Amino acid sequence: MLRLSDIHAALGGVLHGDGACPISGLASLESAGPDRLAFVAQTRHAAAIETTQAAALIVPPELVPRASARGPCIETPEPHAYFARLTQWWRARLQAAQHEAADPAEPAIHPSAWVHPSAELGAGVRLGAFAVVEAGVQIGANSEIGAHCVIGARVRLGAQARLAAQVVIGHDCTLGARCIIHSGAVIGADGFGFAPQQGQWLKIEQLGAVRIGDDVEIGANTCIDRGTLDDTVLEDGVKLDNLIQIGHNVRIGAHSALAGCVGVAGSAHIGAHCTLGGGAGVLGHLRLADHVHITAATLVTRSILKPGQYSGAFPIDDNVNWEKNAATLRQLYALRQRLRALEKKS
Amino acid sequence: MLRLSDIHAALGGVLHGDGACPISGLASLESAGPDRLAFVAQTRHAAAIETTQAAALIVPPELVPRASARGPCIETPEPHAYFARLTQWWRARLQAAQHEAADPAEPAIHPSAWVHPSAELGAGVRLGAFAVVEAGVQIGANSEIGAHCVIGARVRLGAQARLAAQVVIGHDCTLGARCIIHSGAVIGADGFGFAPQQGQWLKIEQLGAVRIGDDVEIGANTCIDRGTLDDTVLEDGVKLDNLIQIGHNVRIGAHSALAGCVGVAGSAHIGAHCTLGGGAGVLGHLRLADHVHITAATLVTRSILKPGQYSGAFPIDDNVNWEKNAATLRQLYALRQRLRALEKKS
Amino acid sequence: MLRLSDIHAALGGVLHGDGACPISGLASLESAGPDRLAFVAQTRHAAAIETTQAAALIVPPELVPRASARGPCIETPEPHAYFARLTQWWRARLQAAQHEAADPAEPAIHPSAWVHPSAELGAGVRLGAFAVVEAGVQIGANSEIGAHCVIGARVRLGAQARLAAQVVIGHDCTLGARCIIHSGAVIGADGFGFAPQQGQWLKIEQLGAVRIGDDVEIGANTCIDRGTLDDTVLEDGVKLDNLIQIGHNVRIGAHSALAGCVGVAGSAHIGAHCTLGGGAGVLGHLRLADHVHITAATLVTRSILKPGQYSGAFPIDDNVNWEKNAATLRQLYALRQRLRALEKKS
Repeated sequence: MLRLSDIHAALGGVLHGDGACPISGLASLESAGPDRLAFVAQTRHAAAIETTQAAALIVPPELVPRASARGPCIETPEPHAYFARLTQWWRARLQAAQHEAADPAEPAIHPSAWVHPSAELGAGVRLGAFAVVEAGVQIGANSEIGAHCVIGARVRLGAQARLAAQVVIGHDCTLGARCIIHSGAVIGADGFGFAPQQGQWLKIEQLGAVRIGDDVEIGANTCIDRGTLDDTVLEDGVKLDNLIQIGHNVRIGAHSALAGCVGVAGSAHIGAHCTLGGGAGVLGHLRLADHVHITAATLVTRSILKPGQYSGAFPIDDNVNWEKNAATLRQLYALRQRLRALEKKS
Repeated sequence: MLRLSDIHAALGGVLHGDGACPISGLASLESAGPDRLAFVAQTRHAAAIETTQAAALIVPPELVPRASARGPCIETPEPHAYFARLTQWWRARLQAAQHEAADPAEPAIHPSAWVHPSAELGAGVRLGAFAVVEAGVQIGANSEIGAHCVIGARVRLGAQARLAAQVVIGHDCTLGARCIIHSGAVIGADGFGFAPQQGQWLKIEQLGAVRIGDDVEIGANTCIDRGTLDDTVLEDGVKLDNLIQIGHNVRIGAHSALAGCVGVAGSAHIGAHCTLGGGAGVLGHLRLADHVHITAATLVTRSILKPGQYSGAFPIDDNVNWEKNAATLRQLYALRQRLRALEKKS
Repeated sequence: MLRLSDIHAALGGVLHGDGACPISGLASLESAGPDRLAFVAQTRHAAAIETTQAAALIVPPELVPRASARGPCIETPEPHAYFARLTQWWRARLQAAQHEAADPAEPAIHPSAWVHPSAELGAGVRLGAFAVVEAGVQIGANSEIGAHCVIGARVRLGAQARLAAQVVIGHDCTLGARCIIHSGAVIGADGFGFAPQQGQWLKIEQLGAVRIGDDVEIGANTCIDRGTLDDTVLEDGVKLDNLIQIGHNVRIGAHSALAGCVGVAGSAHIGAHCTLGGGAGVLGHLRLADHVHITAATLVTRSILKPGQYSGAFPIDDNVNWEKNAATLRQLYALRQRLRALEKKS
């Protein structure tokens, strides 16, 4: 059985109270049962300290008196980050237990996987059932490739990468170390490029690839198109949620994070440390400076060169009010003219 | 050859006119040829009764006089529901004919499928080509798993489920009976959870799973993320269209229906019998009561505790008008101030 | 080594200057190195002629004097279309070289592919690893089916089609010649059709299919649902970007192009030569005439019978201004009433 002191020994911090307290799992403050460990990151959630049933808490220094009054706690200057590391440690424990329980004879390369003889797999690489690794691929040490992944010709993938089942990586793309790619993600499909000719569309073959840095995470069913001539680029530490569309020739700066259903059109360049809320969009060829934050469902229609928060969503209302206001909105310019006329008169 | 009386015998209702009338297919009122069966659900579509070429009609009681004046019809209090059951009956007939025509020796478990020895498959389970069933999986009787599906370790799937080709279900997820999951759906990918630390993002491993009730349908390429600590939950009878994003820890109440391209951010709770129009979004941690209806393309930015219809889409206009109105909208607050000033003067 | 004269010989145009000029790749004007070929389509980009480092340029007649003053160029009336054909020629060269380098004994049908004995494959068809071709399928000559594709029963696919890895085509769908389908696309999943009954949803089985013309391109993870009774139809030359949702019974006219993340709801009919910007949406059962252009992120809520450009996105602003304007927008109708009252008084 796991005790609070085991967690403290593994992850540090200052332990207050009874380290022998048994911990059977992690939980949020609200749903925690009496054998769970929870965390409080901010003083504004402190009221829950008295109401939670959690066995123990992870808290910042200023909440130690309040938390230790009710039971054991671990003190750390950054409870949220401590909690993140704790989930990582917890997952590693679970996986170790599962591997131990599994057939020790289970091979790292599933016998049904198909690997081209010219591919180079680093030490400790695992390949799932029916995975396909094409000619000239290089996979770094200890990377795990899920069932049904297709790794196109000449792809280079860094060490300790984790690809879930059914990821597709197109030919000639490059991914750094420790990347995590979720199921259904498609990296390196053709960008949407056509030249108009006599009312029809002539395909522009997409001759670039996708180049992804270290520690990038890409969500399920997210698409990152290959560049037309140069590469589409995601720098180190970029995090993409599910169902995101990244057009060809886009560049996303280090440590930017995009929430689900975002679309970034071709050749847009997004700076470092930016965030885009869910369903936001960026038109093609725009530039976003570093530290630009776009609210959910906002369409970016011009370059943004100044850090800050930008928004543009229609406010929700009950349907009757919305209908009246939306209808009036279609006359807004005319209303301004009428107002101006009145102002002149008065 | 199928006759109207065969349909009546199978599905009930009151038959008016010639039951020997041959029926070769179902059709809409507008496109029906003279050997087709169509339905009229509402009196406001009654004018088409005289113009349709359909051989026969399914109609509510109040339209029987009008429909039977032109040919045979089946009377039922709920034509739309009758039609739904008719399509189910029709599909079952087609499939029975196709199975009969197929090689009777074709095995239920495709020889290329890979099934872990510890998995338990119920009676009559069918597995498509290259399907992968991992350790500890339990699949209920008569479920059909399409080609290339990947069923992660310890997944439990109810009876009579239908998974189309290339569905991915992550480890430890649970799905009820009679679920229908379309191709490319990803159930149980990691939620988008990170703790910020010194300008970078620390991954929060997602230790929960996804729990789905009975009679749930999930569209193509839709993603349902696993919970961080607890499970993401879809209750009985929920229907999700294609390309929907359901974040971690979301809860969707029974019989709610979400149209295509909807995004629901993490920890939002949607009540029962709700509908969300296409492209709508719900921000994280919000609550929607039962019987809340959100119009297409509306972003829900606050909890909605009262049943009703809510909207928030920008009205479409020709581009010239839109440009003028949109530009004026950016001065709307200033306009209000000017109006106020005028009011004070007058 | 490739020379400019080789390109001129293959693709035509008028060569000005030194045809022996070596060309190692294509590039944009901005990123071109001194061994690259770039193009200038429009006079408004002419200033880059003097600053680009490109070895040679493709230009329209009016820019020949300016371009040939700095180095060799190819003159063509349509530089963008010339460039498109050039990318096609370039890709064919690359592929020929790669095939030559590959094991000549590599079979066209991957030994792991699973093909039903009743399927008919045309001459020169290539099938990737673990591809599945079900009963009664017909594939036209020289089509390439990527790894892990699933081609459902009775699908007919034209000649010279290119399916990337992990495409799913549902039973009974038809695709024309020279179609290009990217990874994760799902063609022929069930449309979202239910009849309400006593607070629950009764499934309407989708008995139609999808019918796609010649020269259609479909992006990664895009979904095209099968029709309820009739077929969903994409006419010749339609181009769909990634992550697009096309509902059941939709019809899209020839040579229309839809950008990423667009959603088209059931039974909408879009004319020929239309364009829909990224993230745009079309509600169900609407009609769009030919040559209608919808701006990004615009929701089409009524039929549009007149060609032209239509828009409806909320203008982006910094968050403080947006908050004020959005709050005022919720009182817009009331403001109009107040303005009217003032007008009456004055």
